[in-house]
Amino acid sequence: MKIHVLTLFPEMFPGVFGSSILKKAQEKGLVEIEVSNIRDFSDNKHKQVDDYPYGGGAGMVLKPEPVFRAVETITEGRKPRVILMCPQGERFTQKKAEELANEEELVFICGHYEGYDERIREHLVTDEISIGDFVLTGGEIPAMAVIDAVVRLIPGVLGQEASHIHDSFSTGLLEHPHYTRPQDFRGMKVPDVLLSGNHQKIEEWRMEQSLKRTFERRPDLLEQMELTPKQKEFIEMLKRNSAKT
Amino acid sequence: MKIHVLTLFPEMFPGVFGSSILKKAQEKGLVEIEVSNIRDFSDNKHKQVDDYPYGGGAGMVLKPEPVFRAVETITEGRKPRVILMCPQGERFTQKKAEELANEEELVFICGHYEGYDERIREHLVTDEISIGDFVLTGGEIPAMAVIDAVVRLIPGVLGQEASHIHDSFSTGLLEHPHYTRPQDFRGMKVPDVLLSGNHQKIEEWRMEQSLKRTFERRPDLLEQMELTPKQKEFIEMLKRNSAKT
Repeated sequence: MKIHVLTLFPEMFPGVFGSSILKKAQEKGLVEIEVSNIRDFSDNKHKQVDDYPYGGGAGMVLKPEPVFRAVETITEGRKPRVILMCPQGERFTQKKAEELANEEELVFICGHYEGYDERIREHLVTDEISIGDFVLTGGEIPAMAVIDAVVRLIPGVLGQEASHIHDSFSTGLLEHPHYTRPQDFRGMKVPDVLLSGNHQKIEEWRMEQSLKRTFERRPDLLEQMELTPKQKEFIEMLKRNSAKT
Repeated sequence: MKIHVLTLFPEMFPGVFGSSILKKAQEKGLVEIEVSNIRDFSDNKHKQVDDYPYGGGAGMVLKPEPVFRAVETITEGRKPRVILMCPQGERFTQKKAEELANEEELVFICGHYEGYDERIREHLVTDEISIGDFVLTGGEIPAMAVIDAVVRLIPGVLGQEASHIHDSFSTGLLEHPHYTRPQDFRGMKVPDVLLSGNHQKIEEWRMEQSLKRTFERRPDLLEQMELTPKQKEFIEMLKRNSAKT
């Protein structure tokens, strides 16, 4: 996969793209990430990329020309999806990450949230993505989040193919608790079942903990899932218990 | 405000914390951000911070000792809020950002999503925060998002005190479209009203565009708002129009 990032702050990216899974994915040749400065595509002699808003108001607006020119230059006539990171966009989910992971090329536009010229949104962009209902300085951190989520899903990126299957949201449930050594840390102990060596019991405990945590924290996720009869029974028991208290 | 970040990948942060608003906020002395490597707090001679999960399974689990020691060392007996970035956490919103912006000190723990030892969650952490329903490699990018959102709200950080008031989510509505020069870009034109010089009309247009965009993309936000009678009337008109088509 080829990923292009267009930003006014290219210096934000090397630390993130040069660490952990994103670094390894590039070293393995599974993804190529290129960060470009929108300013380099300005045809203005002062390299100006923003200007005052028509109609007045605070804040500057990202001009259309440098962004159109940047996308046209880096895509060289290809028509990849062009993603605008913006708070008005579609909420990013694991499902969207899976969809984007199938693409061969992606362009991310990170602007400043004061505003983009609307013509960028209307005529250049194919997807508008938001990572949540909060205000950030720019689209850079959200683009990092989306790129990390997408690259992890490219086959071969994660060492063990199986290792993302049990992550939260991949199964539809929140993850069960994890414990590692020491068995007793300052009097806080690991649950006995995990030390029992009985794998069937351990699996049951983990599924119940996953269901319990999802029931308590994210009941909306349960509604979207197809539960087995045994899982349904457990949820009914949790409901009865919570009604009592 | 003092912000501590605990991570296994400290090299991810300087680019982000050294740019734009976060850089300026630190230069103005309004926030101090310190990134520490959890590995430096391991009492193990190999600086080991993770270990196999009790009960078996793929992936390594972040051990309790180095994380407890790190938090205890950097907070020196103070009891600030300790925030764990994790997908099972409370969904981050602008309201949560406003709440955290009132604190004097915050600690962020970024681990790897394979798993934290549950005792960290139960006995050390005061807040668990998720930025959304997607799987990331670690808590680092989410912590950057939360820190950016929070620091922007510290009085004095944004140049014009007013400049975040019109951002999406601060008003409860999505932002209206923005336009800047040129007036005609490749045949794509700026709406006439914005060139009219009639400020009342411009304000009306912007409010209507904000309502329209929110109605089309995020009707859930409208349900949470108290609308003026004029706004209600406009929404009713939008509903009638969308019913027709």
